[in-house]
Amino acid sequence: MIKVVFFDLDDTLVDTSRLAEMARRNAVENMIRHGLPVDFDTAYGELLELINEYGSNFGRHFDYLLRRLDLPSDPRWVAAGVVAYHNTKFAYLKSVRGARRLLLELKKSGYRLGIITDGNPVKQWEKLIRLELDDYFDGVFISDYLGVKKPHAKIFHKALRSMGVKPEEAVMVGDRLYSDIYGAKEVGMKTVWFRYGKYADRELEYLDYADFTTGKLEDVLDIVRGLNLEDEERSDKEVPSD
Amino acid sequence: MIKVVFFDLDDTLVDTSRLAEMARRNAVENMIRHGLPVDFDTAYGELLELINEYGSNFGRHFDYLLRRLDLPSDPRWVAAGVVAYHNTKFAYLKSVRGARRLLLELKKSGYRLGIITDGNPVKQWEKLIRLELDDYFDGVFISDYLGVKKPHAKIFHKALRSMGVKPEEAVMVGDRLYSDIYGAKEVGMKTVWFRYGKYADRELEYLDYADFTTGKLEDVLDIVRGLNLEDEERSDKEVPSD
Repeated sequence: MIKVVFFDLDDTLVDTSRLAEMARRNAVENMIRHGLPVDFDTAYGELLELINEYGSNFGRHFDYLLRRLDLPSDPRWVAAGVVAYHNTKFAYLKSVRGARRLLLELKKSGYRLGIITDGNPVKQWEKLIRLELDDYFDGVFISDYLGVKKPHAKIFHKALRSMGVKPEEAVMVGDRLYSDIYGAKEVGMKTVWFRYGKYADRELEYLDYADFTTGKLEDVLDIVRGLNLEDEERSDKEVPSD
Repeated sequence: MIKVVFFDLDDTLVDTSRLAEMARRNAVENMIRHGLPVDFDTAYGELLELINEYGSNFGRHFDYLLRRLDLPSDPRWVAAGVVAYHNTKFAYLKSVRGARRLLLELKKSGYRLGIITDGNPVKQWEKLIRLELDDYFDGVFISDYLGVKKPHAKIFHKALRSMGVKPEEAVMVGDRLYSDIYGAKEVGMKTVWFRYGKYADRELEYLDYADFTTGKLEDVLDIVRGLNLEDEERSDKEVPSD
């Protein structure tokens, strides 16, 4: 009997990849507009490589971009990048199509909801608060706060324990086959791979760990209901009512 | 003959104090709205003390506020503060009344313009870029970039040298009698104290260093023109034309 539905955050509930791409492009455009003497493709390419090397939560992307391009440190260019990045980020911060409706339907059906996500705790909460998604969730579990990342079993066990359910009473929904689906399945949860965003065609070697696959978030409602229907039918058989 | 007019940034060209106050108040309100178990006056009072002790550019105000209030670290509360702080900051970021018109008139009259300000270089440039004030200025001199703060003579000398003028060819306009007016006067510049914002009644012991005082930014145009008129009259007397 499924009691809790856990979601990954980025590219599952929040359209993060698109937001990040648009914000980075606009940052580079604005740096050039304010005098950065480099063409767009060169600067944008270097920025992507830098983010790949230092991680997306590194705080000094635009500073390091100047160093990488052998340019002098100039706070004007950095500020131009920061301003455009932030403005674009806020403009493109959207929930994934159907996410809010799904969460509402799941709540109405009596399920408790949780988030299990990697990333910077304050930044992840910022997304939830800006989108006013936070009230839907009974538990939010963020790896940089807990000290353990997906797909390590420990983060799933912490989340399950905190919500007071057994693995088989929980579903994990996420876009990454490795961290979300393989991780959750290994601890005994049911898994729904949300085939969406830049990971839609990656990590396919872990596809066997997905109990369900869908490209539409709304389908999660039917999947969860279906699982509980199966359970009811099975328990009807096992313990016949008299 | 005045050739360059230098301005301080915060509370001279940009209405920073009001912005900061509104942003901090809204941050605390939003933290409470998201569950911070403290009343507004207590939390806001502690935040102001903390900012006073750690400085306004310290990056972890909301984290430290929780510690100070003996509360557990909670990224949700920190994020609530950050979101409200940023939204309010952007909403209240305005140039001081009359600033843009003054800058335009000074440019039209042939003066070159500069900024001499303390603070974080990227944050100061962010204000200029967000307000689209940056194109008015021929030189921007920020202490945390140059390694010397107002009122040290060195920052004024660096600005003057970079703009290629002697001290007597420059005016400094600012809201702080100590850092702006005393500092600039000591190196030989003309000074206009802009009596505005939270420093309007402070540091009055340096009042003697102000050549002019005004509460209206627009007056700077007449002051500068007046100074050049005096110069012309004086040189007319000294070197009679034949």
